[in-house]
Amino acid sequence: MFENYLKESLIGKAIDKKILSIDIVNIRDYALGKAKSVDDYVYGGGSGMLMQVKPIVDCYRDIVKDRKVPTYYLSPRGKLFDQSSAVSMAKFEEIVFICGHYEGIDERAIILTGAKEISIGDFVLTGGELPCMVVIDTMARFVDGVLSNSESVTDESFSNFLLEYPQYSRPSDFEGYKVPEILLSGDHKKVEEWRKEKSLEITKANRPDLYEKYIENN
Amino acid sequence: MFENYLKESLIGKAIDKKILSIDIVNIRDYALGKAKSVDDYVYGGGSGMLMQVKPIVDCYRDIVKDRKVPTYYLSPRGKLFDQSSAVSMAKFEEIVFICGHYEGIDERAIILTGAKEISIGDFVLTGGELPCMVVIDTMARFVDGVLSNSESVTDESFSNFLLEYPQYSRPSDFEGYKVPEILLSGDHKKVEEWRKEKSLEITKANRPDLYEKYIENN
Repeated sequence: MFENYLKESLIGKAIDKKILSIDIVNIRDYALGKAKSVDDYVYGGGSGMLMQVKPIVDCYRDIVKDRKVPTYYLSPRGKLFDQSSAVSMAKFEEIVFICGHYEGIDERAIILTGAKEISIGDFVLTGGELPCMVVIDTMARFVDGVLSNSESVTDESFSNFLLEYPQYSRPSDFEGYKVPEILLSGDHKKVEEWRKEKSLEITKANRPDLYEKYIENN
Repeated sequence: MFENYLKESLIGKAIDKKILSIDIVNIRDYALGKAKSVDDYVYGGGSGMLMQVKPIVDCYRDIVKDRKVPTYYLSPRGKLFDQSSAVSMAKFEEIVFICGHYEGIDERAIILTGAKEISIGDFVLTGGELPCMVVIDTMARFVDGVLSNSESVTDESFSNFLLEYPQYSRPSDFEGYKVPEILLSGDHKKVEEWRKEKSLEITKANRPDLYEKYIENN
């Protein structure tokens, strides 16, 4: 699942430039017994299968050896990941992400790896791979050299709790739908004011929770 | 980016079983002019490039023709997607997702396609592809036949605003870390009580916002 993602987009370029490196480790290489299983039934009953503690812990120890590496387990049970978590996490030299599958992983694997549980949102996925890519993608944008100079991580949604204003590109008139005149005026101060006003409107409409935060902080 | 994801996991199986079908449309096929561009500078100034209105609208019209198809644009500016959005969206026969890139898409593309903006969380990604896969993955689990009978979408985080209790599988003792005895007792009532208590503890610790919702509703 990771392969194409790692080849595409900014992440692929950053890997080519050796700014980042990402190693995918397949837990099946640490499977148990002749059946090569990594999952088993849940103690106490319940539907579905759970990823067992031993393959995860064996794999983890093999990767980190005697180093101390910040470790995260992607789980809907975790603390919510957001833009500011990305900024802090981007400072680490190295991170291990554990991606669960099926019903999740044995609780002792979380304890023994010292993993912090993080969640990308209030929804349940078939596995931890997609949220892991989401976290990597968000973090990577804060690593020096990943974004080019013409790109920017400051002028965006969440930099000040406000969502981004509407943007327009050519043509200035598309089937009668015109770009707001103020954006063509060249008056930078007025453009700024218009954008701020639109940001406030959109934030208030779509995310009253963020709007409140903004009002509290400004 | 989608290719491997669509081959793997439950989604790949559901596609093989013809329960779902997913068509990826490359916006570059609708690129403009000799330069085959899909992006251009932002009116009013600002860093980065914006996806232009025409390729998106041309592509959209080509896909939906004269049908009316629920359409979503993945954007950090949108309303937050969650488990209950997934349940509603899973009822649609057909959905179009628009994935942006660079600084986003021309506002008029959102208006002309009638797209609803949805966000998977308060973070900014390099493009809409990963959040689109996250939404598809979450939704797919609510489509009949995608999960097998032994799997379940009820006993999980968010089904009642509570996060999931700890789970354990074999062995019952791993390096001295033992499965809580109550889970081995066979006493289903006690197991249920223990799980409920743990769910409450974890929710209170990791997500006080969800804990409050639970208390309000119970």
